[in-house]
Amino acid sequence: MAAALALGARGRGRTAPNPNVGCLIVRDGRVIGRGWTQPGGRPHAEAMALEQAGNVAGATIYVTLEPCAHRSPRGPACADLLVAARPARIVMALGDPDPRTDGLGVARLRAAGIAVTENLLAHEAARGMAGFLSRQMLGRPHVTLKLATSLDGRIALPDGRSRWITGAQARAHAHVERATTDAILVGRGTYDADAPRLDVRLAGLEGRSPRRLLLSTREAPEGWTAIASPEAIATLADVDHLLVEGGAGAAAAFLREDLVDRLLLYRAPLLIGEGRAAIGDIGLHDLAEAHGRWRLADTRMLGSDRLEVYERQRTGG
Amino acid sequence: MAAALALGARGRGRTAPNPNVGCLIVRDGRVIGRGWTQPGGRPHAEAMALEQAGNVAGATIYVTLEPCAHRSPRGPACADLLVAARPARIVMALGDPDPRTDGLGVARLRAAGIAVTENLLAHEAARGMAGFLSRQMLGRPHVTLKLATSLDGRIALPDGRSRWITGAQARAHAHVERATTDAILVGRGTYDADAPRLDVRLAGLEGRSPRRLLLSTREAPEGWTAIASPEAIATLADVDHLLVEGGAGAAAAFLREDLVDRLLLYRAPLLIGEGRAAIGDIGLHDLAEAHGRWRLADTRMLGSDRLEVYERQRTGG
Repeated sequence: MAAALALGARGRGRTAPNPNVGCLIVRDGRVIGRGWTQPGGRPHAEAMALEQAGNVAGATIYVTLEPCAHRSPRGPACADLLVAARPARIVMALGDPDPRTDGLGVARLRAAGIAVTENLLAHEAARGMAGFLSRQMLGRPHVTLKLATSLDGRIALPDGRSRWITGAQARAHAHVERATTDAILVGRGTYDADAPRLDVRLAGLEGRSPRRLLLSTREAPEGWTAIASPEAIATLADVDHLLVEGGAGAAAAFLREDLVDRLLLYRAPLLIGEGRAAIGDIGLHDLAEAHGRWRLADTRMLGSDRLEVYERQRTGG
Repeated sequence: MAAALALGARGRGRTAPNPNVGCLIVRDGRVIGRGWTQPGGRPHAEAMALEQAGNVAGATIYVTLEPCAHRSPRGPACADLLVAARPARIVMALGDPDPRTDGLGVARLRAAGIAVTENLLAHEAARGMAGFLSRQMLGRPHVTLKLATSLDGRIALPDGRSRWITGAQARAHAHVERATTDAILVGRGTYDADAPRLDVRLAGLEGRSPRRLLLSTREAPEGWTAIASPEAIATLADVDHLLVEGGAGAAAAFLREDLVDRLLLYRAPLLIGEGRAAIGDIGLHDLAEAHGRWRLADTRMLGSDRLEVYERQRTGG
């Protein structure tokens, strides 16, 4: 299933509004088919893996999301494809909350006599398909806020100079994050100061530069889409994963509305002292309100910088 | 040797201007003597361990610093005590830079036919006796700067409220740090706002509350010592380990003069946004100057908070 999740990760940021599913078919300890949701959402991972495998009699199929139960003009339901293919067993990570499937996919497989195992690495799958799940459950994209700071939380000198705080490895990592998101947003101040390209500058991934959004009530420049408020992200079609890159005002605007689900914190081992803060006014009136919201999900060194990934803890989420 | 270092750590913050040495005597796989420099500097670790062990014929003696070669009115030279005791072997972590010993201790032991092994865990020993070494080599105390911040580097809300950012475990850890330092310093602003007690509030360690220093050109209140500038720490007798606890002005004053050797960074998993910064103006004009100074030496979780320990990298240090 871990391998299927890695396949699913390939599509992240390019499949919206479809989930970025991964699928692996194994028989006699040998992988005979691999699939992942293709850009734009079709073919689905299962269809791709089945085509590769051919005959799947006696095989086990690992799939990161419940196979869809609904036909569409763009292709047959995956549950029907799988029933027709007749594998020995299907192992699934996560149920599909889409009401057109939600349990119906599994039921159809079992009714056809195929053994189904559920909930293998479900938590990891939820993290990998966070954008799709956020769209289904909260009606808006999954939002990652990226901050690159000194140890004392500064993002620039008092005059705005910020090149470079973090090193080459941290910046490369941030570009991989760009490559796996549907859209990137910056605030008006950052746009006016830096006119950032926000493209993916990594060999082999240049074609994966996401859509560019500007948090602004004014008209958007060419090649950009303006959104007037953080809440307006709910209206963005085909954006399931959103990366907020700066600056302090945009970060604060999203935090104030509790619209940040994941925090990517790149920290360089240096002190700046007086300088520009990473986050503006988020409307915090009492420290007690600030506690219990963020949980450290991952941390690693990137050269001499440290990356920490925090996830927003939501009740029942 | 690790056990000897742990014994030496017991004296940290209470032996200045003597080093906080640890000593362990082992024969036939059994510990027969343990010693550490006692409060005020006497007895020395070796003398204490030898007295406990009695006859050390055939034993190995682990000691974290080269045994002293100079007699004093307060006691005999440890090198002479060891020569008289005639152990089989002495294993040593660090040479003593004090010119009255510097190599003479080892030479005297070897001349008496005792085998000496040097440099075992020397780096760890240097960390444990950082205060003594700083005094010997830089002519001033070893300075630790403590910061307790949010993920975005804030130490308080805009109005100054800071209770509590970090949790109980982080605060208890900070009290252990207090118990192993000779003196604690705060700035005038912190004193006026909080009138902090700066004592050790941990069961069993109440008696280890260090001396209190105020960074101020005005007269010190009762129970406090005023120092007019960070450089003036060189004149403080019997302070080998200094802990700078706040606020942003005092932190900046010490950083501006490059007088911070170690950074204790307690970070709570929360965001504050607009609020008070941890560090004021440190006179940084170019980000390039800020790089290469700090190296992560240790990190651990304290409840849901994270502690990071950074050490100042000094050329040749």
